[in-house]
Amino acid sequence: VARRASVHRIPTAHPGDTAGLAALLDAPGGPRAEEIVAILGKTEGIGCVNDFTRAWAAEALAGLLARRTGTTPEAVASRVALVMSGGTEGGLSPHLLVIAVAEDPGPPAPGARLAVGTAFTPAFAPEAIGRMPMVRAVAEAVRAAMAQAGIADPADVHYVQVKCPLLTTARIAAAEARGAVVATRDTYTSMGLSRGASALGVALALGEVAEAALSDAAIGHDLSLFSGRASCSAGVELERCEVVILGNAAGWSGDLIVAHDVMADAIDLPSVQRALGAAGLGTGGGQLPREEAEARLVALLCKAEPSRSGAIRGARHIMWDDSDIHATRHARALVGGVVAAATGQTAHFVSGGAEHQGPDGGGPVAVIARLA
Amino acid sequence: VARRASVHRIPTAHPGDTAGLAALLDAPGGPRAEEIVAILGKTEGIGCVNDFTRAWAAEALAGLLARRTGTTPEAVASRVALVMSGGTEGGLSPHLLVIAVAEDPGPPAPGARLAVGTAFTPAFAPEAIGRMPMVRAVAEAVRAAMAQAGIADPADVHYVQVKCPLLTTARIAAAEARGAVVATRDTYTSMGLSRGASALGVALALGEVAEAALSDAAIGHDLSLFSGRASCSAGVELERCEVVILGNAAGWSGDLIVAHDVMADAIDLPSVQRALGAAGLGTGGGQLPREEAEARLVALLCKAEPSRSGAIRGARHIMWDDSDIHATRHARALVGGVVAAATGQTAHFVSGGAEHQGPDGGGPVAVIARLA
Amino acid sequence: VARRASVHRIPTAHPGDTAGLAALLDAPGGPRAEEIVAILGKTEGIGCVNDFTRAWAAEALAGLLARRTGTTPEAVASRVALVMSGGTEGGLSPHLLVIAVAEDPGPPAPGARLAVGTAFTPAFAPEAIGRMPMVRAVAEAVRAAMAQAGIADPADVHYVQVKCPLLTTARIAAAEARGAVVATRDTYTSMGLSRGASALGVALALGEVAEAALSDAAIGHDLSLFSGRASCSAGVELERCEVVILGNAAGWSGDLIVAHDVMADAIDLPSVQRALGAAGLGTGGGQLPREEAEARLVALLCKAEPSRSGAIRGARHIMWDDSDIHATRHARALVGGVVAAATGQTAHFVSGGAEHQGPDGGGPVAVIARLA
Amino acid sequence: VARRASVHRIPTAHPGDTAGLAALLDAPGGPRAEEIVAILGKTEGIGCVNDFTRAWAAEALAGLLARRTGTTPEAVASRVALVMSGGTEGGLSPHLLVIAVAEDPGPPAPGARLAVGTAFTPAFAPEAIGRMPMVRAVAEAVRAAMAQAGIADPADVHYVQVKCPLLTTARIAAAEARGAVVATRDTYTSMGLSRGASALGVALALGEVAEAALSDAAIGHDLSLFSGRASCSAGVELERCEVVILGNAAGWSGDLIVAHDVMADAIDLPSVQRALGAAGLGTGGGQLPREEAEARLVALLCKAEPSRSGAIRGARHIMWDDSDIHATRHARALVGGVVAAATGQTAHFVSGGAEHQGPDGGGPVAVIARLA
Repeated sequence: VARRASVHRIPTAHPGDTAGLAALLDAPGGPRAEEIVAILGKTEGIGCVNDFTRAWAAEALAGLLARRTGTTPEAVASRVALVMSGGTEGGLSPHLLVIAVAEDPGPPAPGARLAVGTAFTPAFAPEAIGRMPMVRAVAEAVRAAMAQAGIADPADVHYVQVKCPLLTTARIAAAEARGAVVATRDTYTSMGLSRGASALGVALALGEVAEAALSDAAIGHDLSLFSGRASCSAGVELERCEVVILGNAAGWSGDLIVAHDVMADAIDLPSVQRALGAAGLGTGGGQLPREEAEARLVALLCKAEPSRSGAIRGARHIMWDDSDIHATRHARALVGGVVAAATGQTAHFVSGGAEHQGPDGGGPVAVIARLA
Repeated sequence: VARRASVHRIPTAHPGDTAGLAALLDAPGGPRAEEIVAILGKTEGIGCVNDFTRAWAAEALAGLLARRTGTTPEAVASRVALVMSGGTEGGLSPHLLVIAVAEDPGPPAPGARLAVGTAFTPAFAPEAIGRMPMVRAVAEAVRAAMAQAGIADPADVHYVQVKCPLLTTARIAAAEARGAVVATRDTYTSMGLSRGASALGVALALGEVAEAALSDAAIGHDLSLFSGRASCSAGVELERCEVVILGNAAGWSGDLIVAHDVMADAIDLPSVQRALGAAGLGTGGGQLPREEAEARLVALLCKAEPSRSGAIRGARHIMWDDSDIHATRHARALVGGVVAAATGQTAHFVSGGAEHQGPDGGGPVAVIARLA
Repeated sequence: VARRASVHRIPTAHPGDTAGLAALLDAPGGPRAEEIVAILGKTEGIGCVNDFTRAWAAEALAGLLARRTGTTPEAVASRVALVMSGGTEGGLSPHLLVIAVAEDPGPPAPGARLAVGTAFTPAFAPEAIGRMPMVRAVAEAVRAAMAQAGIADPADVHYVQVKCPLLTTARIAAAEARGAVVATRDTYTSMGLSRGASALGVALALGEVAEAALSDAAIGHDLSLFSGRASCSAGVELERCEVVILGNAAGWSGDLIVAHDVMADAIDLPSVQRALGAAGLGTGGGQLPREEAEARLVALLCKAEPSRSGAIRGARHIMWDDSDIHATRHARALVGGVVAAATGQTAHFVSGGAEHQGPDGGGPVAVIARLA
Repeated sequence: VARRASVHRIPTAHPGDTAGLAALLDAPGGPRAEEIVAILGKTEGIGCVNDFTRAWAAEALAGLLARRTGTTPEAVASRVALVMSGGTEGGLSPHLLVIAVAEDPGPPAPGARLAVGTAFTPAFAPEAIGRMPMVRAVAEAVRAAMAQAGIADPADVHYVQVKCPLLTTARIAAAEARGAVVATRDTYTSMGLSRGASALGVALALGEVAEAALSDAAIGHDLSLFSGRASCSAGVELERCEVVILGNAAGWSGDLIVAHDVMADAIDLPSVQRALGAAGLGTGGGQLPREEAEARLVALLCKAEPSRSGAIRGARHIMWDDSDIHATRHARALVGGVVAAATGQTAHFVSGGAEHQGPDGGGPVAVIARLA
C-alpha cells in the first residue's frame, strides 16, 4: 500500500471559524479527522504579542477535531501540529491549510509525490532555547520526520515548518532559580532567537550549513547562515519544537508535488516564478493564468521580513521606523503583493519573522501543486 | 524653439527634507527653480486625517523654492502644484517627483515627447464641492491644460493629477448661513466626493464618460463611471482644483514619454506590465531587468484602494474591517508590492482613495520612461 | 425566602481565560453555575470591528458554563447575558464581573439591597433596528426586568446594561428583498443607532424622557435626550436585546447596594466621587482609601466617549482626528484614568460608544458597594 | 532691578501652528522675542520614532523667532531650548508653554518667585551618551543653571527639563572607527539610557542620590535611583544636553511660583493634589474649582510610564503587550486622565519615557501657579 498526502485550502470567515473544516470532514472523499497531521492557518490578527486570534483558532480547531475523534483538545494538540500565523495584511486572505495523510489501497505513483513527515523534539529547558542544544534537537527531529516521510535525500525536502517555544518571565525565573543563565531575559527577543535556532537546526539537517559554522554567538547575528526551506514560528503554548516537513518521495500516491526557491529580497518576483515553474506551473513570465491557478495551485508558503539595512535595492523603506504599524505587518503586506502578482491569488501562507530563514530581507517560498 | 519636460525622482530622508531638491537645483544641467511646475511627493505619514507630513513637506518645499526664486512661499504655492501624498506602507520608498518645463533652444524631437500642462479652476463655493459644477470646472481645466501642453487628442493624455478641496466645518457653516446645502456635512466623506467629482471631470474632458451619464447622484455611487487616467487627492489647504496633465505631444524635445494602463484589481500585474511595455520598457513577462529600470524607468504612478466587495477575485480581504490599520494603508502596501514585482523598484507614487479613478478595487497606472 | 444577588470581580490573564470563573464555581460558598444570570467582561481587544477577543471570551465562558450545567453553549447563551466589552486602554485591567442570583433561606435584609433582573426582547426585524419599535421593545423589557427584580420605582434602578443587535450586510439584503427600508445601510453606523435606540428605550422606561419627544429622527441626533443609567453595546451575534438591570429593592438579602451618577464630561471627577459617596464609600474628596476600596468597592461601571465638539471644557482634544488610534480607545483610556483617580483601582468596566447614554462627551457611572 | 519670569500657555491648532505665539509677541505687555528662553510643547504626534510633528513644530517655532529677532533659525535653536514632546493621547490638549525672562524695572517681590535658569553641556562623544560622563556633565549644567537663576538651595528647584542626544547609526560608526565602545548599539535603547543618565545627573546635582551609588551599570537598571524633579527627553537633533530649571528664588518679581511632588504610580491622585496644594491651589480633596484653575493654574508638567511589573497596585495592565498602541501612548492617556481629574483641565505637559525620573511606573509632577 501507498500513502497519500492531501492538502486542503479552506477560507475562514473569522478566527474561530471551523465550519469549513467541518464541511471538509463531512464531504464525500474528504479526509477523516484521524488522518489530519497538521493545520497551518493564517488568521487576521496582528501577528504580534497581543494577537489572540492564533490561540482562539487553535482552540477552536482542537475542539472540533477532539469532538470528531472522541478525544480531548489536549490529545489533539499533542498529535497534530496546529501552526497559526497571525497577520493577513494588504490583500492576504485568511485561510487554513489542512494536511492529511491516508493509507491508499492502490499502488504508489510512478514518480515522487508529496510526502509529509512530522516529528517532535523533547521539551527544552529554558536555557536551551535559542541556543545550540535547540539547533541540534531540531536537526534530529528533521531527520526523524524525513525518515517517517521516506525521504532519504535532503534535496527532496522543500519546506520545513517548525513551531518552537519562547522564554516567558516564569520560565526565566525558574531557570535562574536553578542558577542557569538564559540566552536573553527579553521575552520578545527570545522569539527571534528560538525561530533562528530552529531554522539553523533545519539548515544543519538539510546540509545547508556546516555544523562547524554554528555557535550560540552566531544565532541571531550571522545572517549569512540560513536555511532556504525553513519556516519557523514561536508560540507560548509549547515547550518542545514541532516539525512538519514537506518533500517529494517515492512510495506516495496522489497527484501533488512540492517545490521551492529562495527570495533574495522582498520584491524578488523571479524567485516566486521559479518556484511555481519548478512545481510545474506557469508558462510565460507573467501572472499564472487564472484557470491554471485554480485547478493546480494548491498552496504557496513563504516568509516575509524587512531588510535590516533599511533599504530594498538601495531605496529606503520605513518599515523599521513606523511605530504605528509593526515592521512585520508591513513586510507581510508587501510580500503578499509580490506573490499575488505571480499567482493571481491572495490566500497564501505568508508568515513574518524570518531569522536565518532565507537571506536578510528575503526568505523561502514553497509551492504545492497538482500535476497536470 | 521647443519645450522640454523633465522629471526628477529624488529620495527623501524625512518629510521636511529639501536637501535633494536643493542639490538638483544646484547641479549643472539641473532645472532652474522657476522652471518647476509641479512636485508630487510620497511622504511617510499615515495618509489619513492626522497626517502632518504632507503639510510639513509642502511648507518646506515652498520655502526652498521661495528662497530660490526671490518670492514668498504663498506665491510659490499659487504657481506650482505641490501634491503631497502620505503613506509609504510596505516597501514604498519616500521620494519626490519634480516636474519642470524649460525652453529648449534646439528643435523639437521628431516624434511626440512628454508634454506637461497645468491649469487651475476658480475657487469653489462649498456647495459646489463634490457636485456637477466641480465636474464641469475640472473638465474645463483639463481642456485648458491640454491646450497649454499642445495636446489635441485626448488619447494622448496618459495621467491627470488633480488636487482638490474638501469641506471643512467652517466652510459648511458659511454655506448654510447663506441657505446653501452642501453635498455632505461629513468632512471625511467630502474628501471622497471631491476626489470623485474631480475624477469624473477628467473622464468627461477625455471622453471616457458621456456627460449625459453624469449627475450629482452618480458621484460616489455609480462606480461603473470612471477615468482610467485620473489621480485625485483632496487637501484642506486649497479652495480650487489644481490640474497637472502628462501626455505625449509634438513640439516637445527630450527623450521622455508617458504611457498608461488600468489595473482591473489590486493584483493585476499584467496591466502594470502592459503600461511598462507601452512606454517601451520590458520584453518578457517577468520583472524589468535592473539595468533597464535604472536607466529608463523615470516614474510610475498609480492608485490603490480596497475593493468595496471585501474580496479580491473571490477571496476575502480584511482591509475594511481592520480598525488598527486604515484600509487605504493596507491597499497602498499591497499595490506597492504588485508594482514593485513588475519594476524591481519601490520608489513609486502609489496613492490611495480612488473614487471614479479606475474600476472598483483597481485604478490607473502610468509610466514615465526614457526612450532607449 | 429572600433572594441574594452577588457580584464577583475576577481578573483574567487573557481573553479566553476561564480559570478564575472555574475557581469561583469550585470555591466553598461560591455561586453555582446555574445561579449565574450575567457576566460582564472587559477584554483586552481593540473594541472595534475586528476585535475578536469578545467572541473568544464569550465562547470560552459559555463553554465552561455548559460543561458545569450539563447543557450546551447555545443554551447558556440564551439564558445568561454575556456582555463582553473590548478595550482596556491606559491602565484598565481585564476582568469579569460575574453576577449571580440565589435563593437565600434566611429573611430579607431590613433595607433595600442589590436587586438584579434580566429580560429579553423578541428578535427584531432588520428595519426595526435603531428605530422606535426597538425603543419601545427595550422599554418593555426594562419594565419586565424591574418586575422580576421586584423594583417598582424607576428611581431605584441605577444601571441598565443592554446588549443589542446590529445590521449586517446579510440582514440588510434580507430586509430589502422584502421591500423594507433599514435605518442605515452602513453596518458600523447601525451599531450606534442600535445602542442609541436601546438607551432611549431605557430612558423611556425610567421616565428620563417623554415618549412624545422620541422619534426615528431623534435617534442618533438629538443628544439632549439621554438616559443617565443605560449602558448599551451592540454585537453581531444576537437578533434580540438582552437587558440586565441593577437596582436596590426590598426582598433581597446580602450586603450589596448600587448607586449611580452622571459624568457631565470625560474629566468629571466630582460625579464619580458622588456616585461612590451615594454607595456609602469615601469620606473626603480625594482618592478612596485603599483598605476601604479593597473591602467594599465591588464594581464600577461607566461609559466613555469623545465629545462631538472636539473639545473638553474649551480645550481641543485630538481623539476624532487620530487615524492610528480609534476615538473610543482614547476615550476609554482617559475615563479609565479619571475613575482610577477616584478609586485607586483599575479593574473597572469602562465601555465606549455612549449614544444617548449620558450627555455628549460624558456618561453614566454606577458603583456596586458592600455595606460597611 | 529684578528679573521677571513669565509662562504663557498657548493652544495650537496643528503642529506647525505658530499663530498663537505670534499673537503673544504682538500683544501689549507680551514678552519680546528676545526674552524667550524656552518653549515646551505638546504636539499631537505619536511620540515615537516616526513622530515628525516634533521636528515640524520646532522648525516652525525657530523660523518665527528668527524672523522676529533678525537672526537665523539655527541661532534661535542654539539659544532657546525648544523641547517638543509628541503625544496628546486621551484628553490631552496640544499646546505650547512659552517661558520668558525679562528685566523688571521695579523691585523684586518680597518673597521667592518663579526663577528660571538655562545651561548647556558641551557636546558628547558618542561613547559618553548614557554613561557616567553624561551624568556628571548634566549635574554640572544643573548647577550652572541654578547659579544663573540665583537658586542656592537645591530644595528650591522644583522642575528640571533636560533635552538630551541619542545614538544614531552614524554616531555609533564614528565612535567604533576610533575604537570606542558605545553603551548600546540599539538606537532606540540609547534614548532611554540618555534620558536615564540625564535624570541621574539632575538627581546628583540636587542631592537626591549619592555619587557613590552611581555607575554605568546602574543606569537603566537600578530604578531605585531617581530624581523627583527631572523630566528628560531625547532628540536626534542635538549632541549636547540642554537644561532648563524652574525653581523659586529671591531677586525675582511677578506673581508666579512653582511646586512639585512625586507620583508613586500612574494613578496617584493624592500626589497631584499635594503638588497643587504646595503651589497654593485647591482646598478640598476634589477637583480644582474651575474659576481658580483658570485664574491661577499656569502649567502642570509630569512624566508618564507603564510600570515594568505589568501591574498597577496588583491589577494587570496591558500597556506592554499591545503591539497596536505603544506603551508610552497608553501611559500618557492614563496619566493625562488622572491629572485632569485633579485640575479640571487637559492642556498639561504629560511626557513619556521616565527612566530614573520618579519611581518605576510613577514620576514627578510640577505645578506653576499664580499667587492669589
